[in-house]
Amino acid sequence: MIIVMKRDAGQDQIDHIVEKITEWGLTANVSRGEETNVIGVIGDESVIRTKPLEVFPGVESVMPVLKPYKLASTEFHPDPTVITIPAVKDGEKDVVLGGSDVVVIAGPCSVESREVLLETAHDVKKRGATILRGGAFKPRTSPYAFQGLGVEGLRLLAEAREEAGIPIITEVMDTRDVEMVAEFADVLQVGARNMQNFNLLKAIGRSGIPVMIKRGLSSTLKELLMSAEYVMSQGNGNVLLCERGIRTFETMTRNTVDISAVPAIKGESHLPVAVDPSHGTGHRDYIVPVARAAVAAGADAIMVEVHPRPEEALCDGPQALLPEEFGGTVNELRAVAKAVGRGL
Amino acid sequence: MIIVMKRDAGQDQIDHIVEKITEWGLTANVSRGEETNVIGVIGDESVIRTKPLEVFPGVESVMPVLKPYKLASTEFHPDPTVITIPAVKDGEKDVVLGGSDVVVIAGPCSVESREVLLETAHDVKKRGATILRGGAFKPRTSPYAFQGLGVEGLRLLAEAREEAGIPIITEVMDTRDVEMVAEFADVLQVGARNMQNFNLLKAIGRSGIPVMIKRGLSSTLKELLMSAEYVMSQGNGNVLLCERGIRTFETMTRNTVDISAVPAIKGESHLPVAVDPSHGTGHRDYIVPVARAAVAAGADAIMVEVHPRPEEALCDGPQALLPEEFGGTVNELRAVAKAVGRGL
Amino acid sequence: MIIVMKRDAGQDQIDHIVEKITEWGLTANVSRGEETNVIGVIGDESVIRTKPLEVFPGVESVMPVLKPYKLASTEFHPDPTVITIPAVKDGEKDVVLGGSDVVVIAGPCSVESREVLLETAHDVKKRGATILRGGAFKPRTSPYAFQGLGVEGLRLLAEAREEAGIPIITEVMDTRDVEMVAEFADVLQVGARNMQNFNLLKAIGRSGIPVMIKRGLSSTLKELLMSAEYVMSQGNGNVLLCERGIRTFETMTRNTVDISAVPAIKGESHLPVAVDPSHGTGHRDYIVPVARAAVAAGADAIMVEVHPRPEEALCDGPQALLPEEFGGTVNELRAVAKAVGRGL
Amino acid sequence: MIIVMKRDAGQDQIDHIVEKITEWGLTANVSRGEETNVIGVIGDESVIRTKPLEVFPGVESVMPVLKPYKLASTEFHPDPTVITIPAVKDGEKDVVLGGSDVVVIAGPCSVESREVLLETAHDVKKRGATILRGGAFKPRTSPYAFQGLGVEGLRLLAEAREEAGIPIITEVMDTRDVEMVAEFADVLQVGARNMQNFNLLKAIGRSGIPVMIKRGLSSTLKELLMSAEYVMSQGNGNVLLCERGIRTFETMTRNTVDISAVPAIKGESHLPVAVDPSHGTGHRDYIVPVARAAVAAGADAIMVEVHPRPEEALCDGPQALLPEEFGGTVNELRAVAKAVGRGL
Repeated sequence: MIIVMKRDAGQDQIDHIVEKITEWGLTANVSRGEETNVIGVIGDESVIRTKPLEVFPGVESVMPVLKPYKLASTEFHPDPTVITIPAVKDGEKDVVLGGSDVVVIAGPCSVESREVLLETAHDVKKRGATILRGGAFKPRTSPYAFQGLGVEGLRLLAEAREEAGIPIITEVMDTRDVEMVAEFADVLQVGARNMQNFNLLKAIGRSGIPVMIKRGLSSTLKELLMSAEYVMSQGNGNVLLCERGIRTFETMTRNTVDISAVPAIKGESHLPVAVDPSHGTGHRDYIVPVARAAVAAGADAIMVEVHPRPEEALCDGPQALLPEEFGGTVNELRAVAKAVGRGL
Repeated sequence: MIIVMKRDAGQDQIDHIVEKITEWGLTANVSRGEETNVIGVIGDESVIRTKPLEVFPGVESVMPVLKPYKLASTEFHPDPTVITIPAVKDGEKDVVLGGSDVVVIAGPCSVESREVLLETAHDVKKRGATILRGGAFKPRTSPYAFQGLGVEGLRLLAEAREEAGIPIITEVMDTRDVEMVAEFADVLQVGARNMQNFNLLKAIGRSGIPVMIKRGLSSTLKELLMSAEYVMSQGNGNVLLCERGIRTFETMTRNTVDISAVPAIKGESHLPVAVDPSHGTGHRDYIVPVARAAVAAGADAIMVEVHPRPEEALCDGPQALLPEEFGGTVNELRAVAKAVGRGL
Repeated sequence: MIIVMKRDAGQDQIDHIVEKITEWGLTANVSRGEETNVIGVIGDESVIRTKPLEVFPGVESVMPVLKPYKLASTEFHPDPTVITIPAVKDGEKDVVLGGSDVVVIAGPCSVESREVLLETAHDVKKRGATILRGGAFKPRTSPYAFQGLGVEGLRLLAEAREEAGIPIITEVMDTRDVEMVAEFADVLQVGARNMQNFNLLKAIGRSGIPVMIKRGLSSTLKELLMSAEYVMSQGNGNVLLCERGIRTFETMTRNTVDISAVPAIKGESHLPVAVDPSHGTGHRDYIVPVARAAVAAGADAIMVEVHPRPEEALCDGPQALLPEEFGGTVNELRAVAKAVGRGL
Repeated sequence: MIIVMKRDAGQDQIDHIVEKITEWGLTANVSRGEETNVIGVIGDESVIRTKPLEVFPGVESVMPVLKPYKLASTEFHPDPTVITIPAVKDGEKDVVLGGSDVVVIAGPCSVESREVLLETAHDVKKRGATILRGGAFKPRTSPYAFQGLGVEGLRLLAEAREEAGIPIITEVMDTRDVEMVAEFADVLQVGARNMQNFNLLKAIGRSGIPVMIKRGLSSTLKELLMSAEYVMSQGNGNVLLCERGIRTFETMTRNTVDISAVPAIKGESHLPVAVDPSHGTGHRDYIVPVARAAVAAGADAIMVEVHPRPEEALCDGPQALLPEEFGGTVNELRAVAKAVGRGL
């Protein structure tokens, strides 16, 4: 922690701060500059991070030096985290997130009917997806929009999982539902609007189930890593981070996929990274180029929406690929993965 | 709903859409322009709002005409909502939010100790506050930061409420806690990070307790009104909206108070509006000018943090006023309120 | 300047940086922490600010300690700058920006016709404005929109200035036009889109004419102060800064007025501050509450658009007040000014 | 143009608008809905776009239907624009922007010395670049930072161009310099801060020289296309658009590369698209993944900074690749280009 003093700060103000720092069990190092003085604090920064140092008389600004995340950081855990989702059926391969192969997650935005879900599950598996997505609980901006099938949706997901032999990921929105959803899902999903629902993160941390945390609409990567830290601090290290587009001023796309989030997260953290070009662009024509870009940038997983009849979708039809488009997309992604030295 | 067709859209594509609209029980009105064709949809827009019209062949864009909120809108409820919080002690006045007087809400960021809370409660009441604020559950970006005293904090708030004879507002973060917090609080608070925690909003809607919803960090006012709509759709009309600063690129302040949110909400909605200059600026020196601005712009309530010893605050010390500064602030706000024809 | 080293940085990397710092004529102070090392640089920070320190092996991050602006800063010039615009006619009062009175600047968005301009000039002066605004050169997003009357517009402004006896402010967009516009205008205006047109700022700096710089659409206050610094570095200290709303995600208003910009600029700089609620909100109904807020927050000047027949305006009609509305607005602003101890 | 009326708008207000629309030579089509009325305007939308319709009594909102750009739009010019830069030396190939091959533009941020520039020019050409970049005029946030060598820099670029036989791109910042810079440069560059310097765009439009326009820091793609429209409206169709990262809340990168800008521009416009991962990320480690992503997304050109001794760079050293890194980067980009069916 570095404390920059105001130009007109007096010696008594410096002394007062040094005294407090010493009281807290840390060491202060005063640097006298030509224009201003600076106090460096040596010792465990977490002790001092919560102290209201800006409020002390004479202080101009306070700059943390260390990163606020530990468990999520490469500094403390240099090897990449690999999350293994066991195969649903004997004789099939486990799904490995963070390994040499890029994983494709596909399925409808929401679970709408048994028929559509089963058809899609078989279809996407056949064409190269290894995890099925589908929302039973849907966070919708309007109370009058379709809110998901709830528990019935979870049961349909379980059926599709067994029938098609493909693990599932589905969103949990409420602390009261974590245990129940955990009984059905291979991977839990925390939606963008819940990225800082800290009690939900803690509950998922205690469940031990693998979780994909979506980046909040206007969240920084540091905040995303802090949300991972919440889960990890409860003992659950199986965290996949998902770039799903952030809110910007651009209106041609629904959100703006921050492609440099992929190398930036990989520079700071050992956790695997997914990209969701469907929510990220909100526009069917842009999904494939952005999915290719995500693989080229080093993403470990790509999540896309697939729906056999988008005109009938109850949620986000405009950003769903048709199953046959999805098949072509997988082939394109495979070519790019190969060009950057990975499988798919 | 207006559907703008692509320039090269064919008649068959127009016919297909008109047919669907008719199927949904609505009426289509095709307008043929020189450069493009437009289909107007007449009837209940909520029926069509969830249909994936962008996905239909030949569609360029879809523009909703009506507002997505009903209960929160002045169009359906022209008279201002007035929320009355009954006096804690006999012989004192009820607190009225949305009436002719501006209400001042004050207290520490978090409940930290019995002593500080009681001292502050008496102090702010004496100097003009009519609601006491204080967080028992604190949403913190880091799992390692002080998370609030929890139930113990609620008990201290109840004690301060009785002792000082002042109603309290406190945050609820978890659907599991709504009933319990509702037993202690006069007004529930939904924090900025939970503005789109839709299950929490529904649970509060069912509780019937007055609630203040803080605007999300990067939320639009339309989204804030939709969150109010969630609460109101469950039968709870006692909603106070709070502008607490939005995230912008500016770094001299913690957030950017959107002062035009006050007249804009009042133009669209009948709900009362509060402004929180403490979180909004994050900087003690800017609280008073921004609080004055909020009263001048027409805010119904001002919420400020007050702490007797900010150097010891466990949370947000840099944005707390001292009790004696708070007294001066109330006087300044009273002068501005008078200039714009209101009491305080 | 503080240089934070990576956790695994070696002594040779520290030595290499210390050596360079010494070469540049500065002093390095190495602080050894438990988790990382930090190098403080003592001496003239402007020498080191342009060095690519992040590129040196072992460096994690670099944090400047001093402010990048000098001439615009209160640290180097503690007394408020007062800009005096001489009266146009004998016997009238000079206009003083940054004094005890709040100045009202009013007029049409663009100069459109002799008749409208003269009518408006007389009208706004009568009702309390002391500077007339009007654009002869208009920066328009579309090449097909009205681009202003150019030199003819300047001549009309000169005529209105003489006739009504009111100083004028008008925009200059092109380095080639600075000298010419300076012959007609009492105050030059740099528009938001030109806030970082550095050659324009330098040319205006050399002209010596008072200038109002509008904050860029997504600029920080630090960047705004750096633009003032460009003008001041050429010897022109008569700089008025204008908050005119920044781009945010909000769509109910055209821009978002950053009301805390007023106290924040006044905390950092001695320059006077104006607020433009017309461009800031883009919405006639919100101009008055936001103008009142600006005065309450401490603004030195308010700039509003006034047009006698907004339905015929060639530019920004929706954000213009009618002359009679303007008269009422001035009275409301006067009441708020009085409440915060100022005249108008 | 669609005009949505307020719910309580009267027939006289509708009649007033219809009358005006007829006066302007257009046709009005009134659609009566259950909750509100809507007026569709048929005819040349550019006539009505500048009318202040929001100001007419009874109007709730106004929605344009057509796109504001014509010359830049695929609707009016369906074939892709291909820009050919003639070879500097006989026997070498022309550089084709917008063709089947991806073009690599490389060089130092600013021209600093003859030695560094010539060395870099030879080096990047040898390793696969076909256009040399280098700034002679530098737009710097601070008046105290290195502002470029100016005309001397242009002369050095001309020398490097001849010596190494590689066309050059360089920035022009001032309307007064357009003709002079056009004598030296093969491609002019408009920087992000000048994207809406409309007089500069017009002057470049008249020069007829190919130009690369960088997207403004917080500009939308629509605004970028309107800036292209300014150049094209003066008769210059040789416009290359450059995504160079936009300002977001993310701090791990200098800017956020909007990767979906590539397919979005290609969907709306026939103009070729470049991506600048150096300015876009500001971080040497992220340049290569983001450059790969840009090629995978369909970019026609990649612009990267290369400097032989970044520790000595006067500008943006932290985002420059070393020449040998650059060589490896070109090979990686070639593999990705091949995977998406292009050459490089």
